[in-house]
Amino acid sequence: MIVVLTPHPSTSDVRYVERRVRELGYKPHTIRGAVRTIVAAVGDETKRQTLEVLATLPMVEKVIPIQKRYRLVSREVEPQTYRVRVGSVVMGGPAFHVIAGPCSVESERQILSTARAVRAAGATLLRGGAFKPRTSPYDFQGLGGAGLRILRRVKEETGLPIVSEAVNEKDLDSLIEVADVIQIGARNAMNYSLLEAAARTGRPVILKRGMAQTIEEWLLSAEYLAKNGNHQVILCERGIRTFERATRNTLDLSAVVLAKLESNLPVIVDPSHAAGRHDLVAALSNAAVAAGADGLMIEVHEHPEQAASDGSQQLTHEAFRRLMQGLQPFLRAAGRTKPPAPRRVLHRGKTRR
Amino acid sequence: MIVVLTPHPSTSDVRYVERRVRELGYKPHTIRGAVRTIVAAVGDETKRQTLEVLATLPMVEKVIPIQKRYRLVSREVEPQTYRVRVGSVVMGGPAFHVIAGPCSVESERQILSTARAVRAAGATLLRGGAFKPRTSPYDFQGLGGAGLRILRRVKEETGLPIVSEAVNEKDLDSLIEVADVIQIGARNAMNYSLLEAAARTGRPVILKRGMAQTIEEWLLSAEYLAKNGNHQVILCERGIRTFERATRNTLDLSAVVLAKLESNLPVIVDPSHAAGRHDLVAALSNAAVAAGADGLMIEVHEHPEQAASDGSQQLTHEAFRRLMQGLQPFLRAAGRTKPPAPRRVLHRGKTRR
Amino acid sequence: MIVVLTPHPSTSDVRYVERRVRELGYKPHTIRGAVRTIVAAVGDETKRQTLEVLATLPMVEKVIPIQKRYRLVSREVEPQTYRVRVGSVVMGGPAFHVIAGPCSVESERQILSTARAVRAAGATLLRGGAFKPRTSPYDFQGLGGAGLRILRRVKEETGLPIVSEAVNEKDLDSLIEVADVIQIGARNAMNYSLLEAAARTGRPVILKRGMAQTIEEWLLSAEYLAKNGNHQVILCERGIRTFERATRNTLDLSAVVLAKLESNLPVIVDPSHAAGRHDLVAALSNAAVAAGADGLMIEVHEHPEQAASDGSQQLTHEAFRRLMQGLQPFLRAAGRTKPPAPRRVLHRGKTRR
Amino acid sequence: MIVVLTPHPSTSDVRYVERRVRELGYKPHTIRGAVRTIVAAVGDETKRQTLEVLATLPMVEKVIPIQKRYRLVSREVEPQTYRVRVGSVVMGGPAFHVIAGPCSVESERQILSTARAVRAAGATLLRGGAFKPRTSPYDFQGLGGAGLRILRRVKEETGLPIVSEAVNEKDLDSLIEVADVIQIGARNAMNYSLLEAAARTGRPVILKRGMAQTIEEWLLSAEYLAKNGNHQVILCERGIRTFERATRNTLDLSAVVLAKLESNLPVIVDPSHAAGRHDLVAALSNAAVAAGADGLMIEVHEHPEQAASDGSQQLTHEAFRRLMQGLQPFLRAAGRTKPPAPRRVLHRGKTRR
Repeated sequence: MIVVLTPHPSTSDVRYVERRVRELGYKPHTIRGAVRTIVAAVGDETKRQTLEVLATLPMVEKVIPIQKRYRLVSREVEPQTYRVRVGSVVMGGPAFHVIAGPCSVESERQILSTARAVRAAGATLLRGGAFKPRTSPYDFQGLGGAGLRILRRVKEETGLPIVSEAVNEKDLDSLIEVADVIQIGARNAMNYSLLEAAARTGRPVILKRGMAQTIEEWLLSAEYLAKNGNHQVILCERGIRTFERATRNTLDLSAVVLAKLESNLPVIVDPSHAAGRHDLVAALSNAAVAAGADGLMIEVHEHPEQAASDGSQQLTHEAFRRLMQGLQPFLRAAGRTKPPAPRRVLHRGKTRR
Repeated sequence: MIVVLTPHPSTSDVRYVERRVRELGYKPHTIRGAVRTIVAAVGDETKRQTLEVLATLPMVEKVIPIQKRYRLVSREVEPQTYRVRVGSVVMGGPAFHVIAGPCSVESERQILSTARAVRAAGATLLRGGAFKPRTSPYDFQGLGGAGLRILRRVKEETGLPIVSEAVNEKDLDSLIEVADVIQIGARNAMNYSLLEAAARTGRPVILKRGMAQTIEEWLLSAEYLAKNGNHQVILCERGIRTFERATRNTLDLSAVVLAKLESNLPVIVDPSHAAGRHDLVAALSNAAVAAGADGLMIEVHEHPEQAASDGSQQLTHEAFRRLMQGLQPFLRAAGRTKPPAPRRVLHRGKTRR
Repeated sequence: MIVVLTPHPSTSDVRYVERRVRELGYKPHTIRGAVRTIVAAVGDETKRQTLEVLATLPMVEKVIPIQKRYRLVSREVEPQTYRVRVGSVVMGGPAFHVIAGPCSVESERQILSTARAVRAAGATLLRGGAFKPRTSPYDFQGLGGAGLRILRRVKEETGLPIVSEAVNEKDLDSLIEVADVIQIGARNAMNYSLLEAAARTGRPVILKRGMAQTIEEWLLSAEYLAKNGNHQVILCERGIRTFERATRNTLDLSAVVLAKLESNLPVIVDPSHAAGRHDLVAALSNAAVAAGADGLMIEVHEHPEQAASDGSQQLTHEAFRRLMQGLQPFLRAAGRTKPPAPRRVLHRGKTRR
Repeated sequence: MIVVLTPHPSTSDVRYVERRVRELGYKPHTIRGAVRTIVAAVGDETKRQTLEVLATLPMVEKVIPIQKRYRLVSREVEPQTYRVRVGSVVMGGPAFHVIAGPCSVESERQILSTARAVRAAGATLLRGGAFKPRTSPYDFQGLGGAGLRILRRVKEETGLPIVSEAVNEKDLDSLIEVADVIQIGARNAMNYSLLEAAARTGRPVILKRGMAQTIEEWLLSAEYLAKNGNHQVILCERGIRTFERATRNTLDLSAVVLAKLESNLPVIVDPSHAAGRHDLVAALSNAAVAAGADGLMIEVHEHPEQAASDGSQQLTHEAFRRLMQGLQPFLRAAGRTKPPAPRRVLHRGKTRR
């Protein structure tokens, strides 16, 4: 860390700061410049307390961290991209995976119909929310346990691994009886208790970026998962909140490029929540592929105008089929391979095609 | 809601939209304009499904909600400001309350010393975190149960009611054995499971605004509490995340004015987290009083430069004393009364001075 | 426009609003709902004064505009994409154009070297700033007239049309003696005087999006150009300012998709200013192609670490060559054709290859 | 500046960076840490080229500036607050000044009526726009020269010094024949050509903060004025653009506190543009006083619901009178004095009461 002193510090001021730096476990190096004096503090910042408390001293103007605060998910520490295995599906390798399905589980008929349609179009995982975090308490909150039972039957029927969102710790046990991947939504991206509990299940986790989360904070949320023993983490960029309201959020594809540079985790993109409107989803999906994403998560509904939630951003089956077709030339340009269709799983461990 | 159609819709397009509006339980009124045709949908939007799903129809350009989505916390519905009672303290009335204390509970000596100092300076509630949601898993996470036990002893000693943060549902029971007010932090402002569980405790709740939460969404989070039977809610503005990084967050005092206009809840301000630096806290506290806030929450530490967390924004005892002194003329200007010092509570229900 | 009244308005309140709506030239249609009463005002909003002033009335809660405020640049009004012709170069057609060159003109040697390198790599226009708007008055402000003379010689030598930024009206005359395209930078995106003056030159304009400009406001800035007789406008997305500071700005590719849906103007992307760091530029360029952009503007410098401005985001000649190579498969996937190399222009009107 | 190297740099990498630092005129000090190696570059950053170009080197991870980039407007360099004299009015001293008047000049009758009303209520300067920068080219653009002539007559009649906005360089000469203070609006806050031209007039300048301008960039815009010989600068906070749209902008009172700490310029607040709605203006004015602002700029219109621009945020004469009354206790609390009513100026130099 760099401790920047206020202009023209006295010698005793400098000595005091140096002593405090030493007490906190770092080695101080003082450099007196033309205008500013700084004390560079040498030591591993992830293993010691931060020096930011020194900013409170009258002779200190600011404290600037130098080092990155994440370790386990950092490509610097472990350069190889982690591969996340979900049943027969491997994310983070050359194959590009599309997760598709409705925002909410509404009925078995609905899920089965959409699951078949997205499987036929090339999706390899099925998404569907049984527990829905909704901004208004008067909005549809999901079918809960009944939703999970529907997902289980549809999974048995179609062989598609299931991605479903966790909204609290107490439902995790029942969730992972069905979900192959636990989704942590944007609203819970900094709910560290939930992250720790999700990590302890050992189940792969899709970690959405919080709507006001910096890339560093997002990777630190991933670090919470890794530090609690679960490196089966897929990052998901879903747009950040900005002044622009023509789209629901602002898709930040630079964050995808950066997250892949900085971390060793697979990164996917959710263009549906980013745009909040169906007519931008296909073009943004193409852009995500070109930016280097490892997969997509797309909302699809048989009749979006009747959906119980987020109707305006869901694609019809036909629009999704066209999106998948349109994606192919970009996948080839990006050197991505097509994943095999998921095998149907009869019992845990046994599979058939 | 207003359904805006794409230009020059056919008659059958208009009929189709009107039918869908009717099916969703609203009464359609179509108005053909020079440029745009709109279908105004009449019906209570908090009791029916939103029409936003219609935005997915090809002949619909957008759907504009008219009505506010919160009801119980709306001043329109209930014009009287709710008073929140915490022991002998009443928030939301003419008295202005200052909650003060360290970011984290570190030791009994520390808390007791700060509790006495802030009580002497005029604070009427004590804050202190036993469970700390920290951005990095390598940062100090709070003393947990040991922290709660310290808070209990200091509360018995000083009579100050305790404000402490909940970070998950499972610790709520032990938290409310000590905390008189449950704080929901900015990171959990949209953790609806936690809000519902906190509501069910019946304990007053301080609801911080999420760092990217609109005022409407903040009031909807409060509505979650009220709808689950707990109207003992205090809103707390603590700064939002913007492009400006000279301050940790951007304190939004307009939100205080608006929240007081729109809702019937007391509103307080946390200038410490907003600024993220101690040298702005006093001036922002004065501004909060003048904007009409009902109270303040301020971080105070005996030795901020040794604090285990958030040192750079904590005030020394002496700085807090000066802040409280400086606040008095503004409190008089705002017509605020000085609350009595809290009585010491011997047993639940019994008190002595 | 929709005028939303406060709850339970009296009949005379409603009559008063209707009268005011009529006086402002609109036809009122009142709809009394369960909760809200609205007055829909029918009339062309681009030809009359806005009704937003009515929001000041005590019985009015808010006024919601329905209609888009741009007309000439709207695809609704004129569905065909405008083609912008710059010498032998046509933007907005099937060919994809890359504008490349240094941030600032520093010397003839520098510009000539970079111009040759980017031409060889496939760029079809040369960028270079003679007038530089810099955040600090102590930073390099550009070579001014001397810079323009350098650009003219390099243009004669290489045949590359020149893109250069205007920072005020008084230099426009000398600028257009050399520049084939006038660039309006992000800082001047809402400098309407400069827009009008630039429009009157008749020269094509690249209009960068302001760093806090909504898409609607950006199109309205373009409308200023079109309304002043110049429809030779190319929109350029260059990132918006958000809370994320790991990148200089946040590239908003949704804005590219939306601007192409909403307007009839070509849209290009400047990934260099968006990212502010060279290591993201290639991936973001690929993403821009996939999102449907019509071109790119990329900063290239022979020795970025010696650049007089914006060094950290400029690519070396070699990095640019690799970027152009990497772009080809994505251009094919997007169905884009390769433009012919620009012909050298001997005199105005005469050309040779 | 601090140059942070990538992990484990070779000795020759370090030597190369040190050489480049020296070539750019700084003295390098290398510190090898446990994790990171840094090269601290000693030298005055406002007198040399920035080292940020070094970020482009492969062995450099980032470059962190330490020093502030403004000098003349910095309180560090000149601790005394500048007093800005406008006729008989002095801003930046103990007296608190309120600038009031309509958004746009519409007619002599309108301006005269409002000027008398605001003077009677205690305002000491009159605002009114003759040149209006409007987001849409179809909106009212101001009366131009005719507006200036009206302002001149009203100034002679009432003695109120005039604040009016400049939107380009070519109208500056006619503007300063009438305006005692040149206002630079938020849209032109980074239009450095206009800033330089405004500085050269020698007339006091009110510099509004750009809607996405950091505090540092705002002070650098002020530095442009000071560096061009004009230190008669008043900073004006008017809200920044954030995700929150319930208010037109987000008033950033922390920026007022910080600008007064960091710079030696008077700082005023424009709550009208910040809020964009009249019902928040009074409370935000009180808050601005308490935060330490030196004045206010408030939009007032005889009949806001008939205003040619920005009607929804303008106060009626009566509402302004009440605001001024309500402000008094807060001005007393802040230790502010009441300025004398401006004297009527007969000719330049001669005055009468």
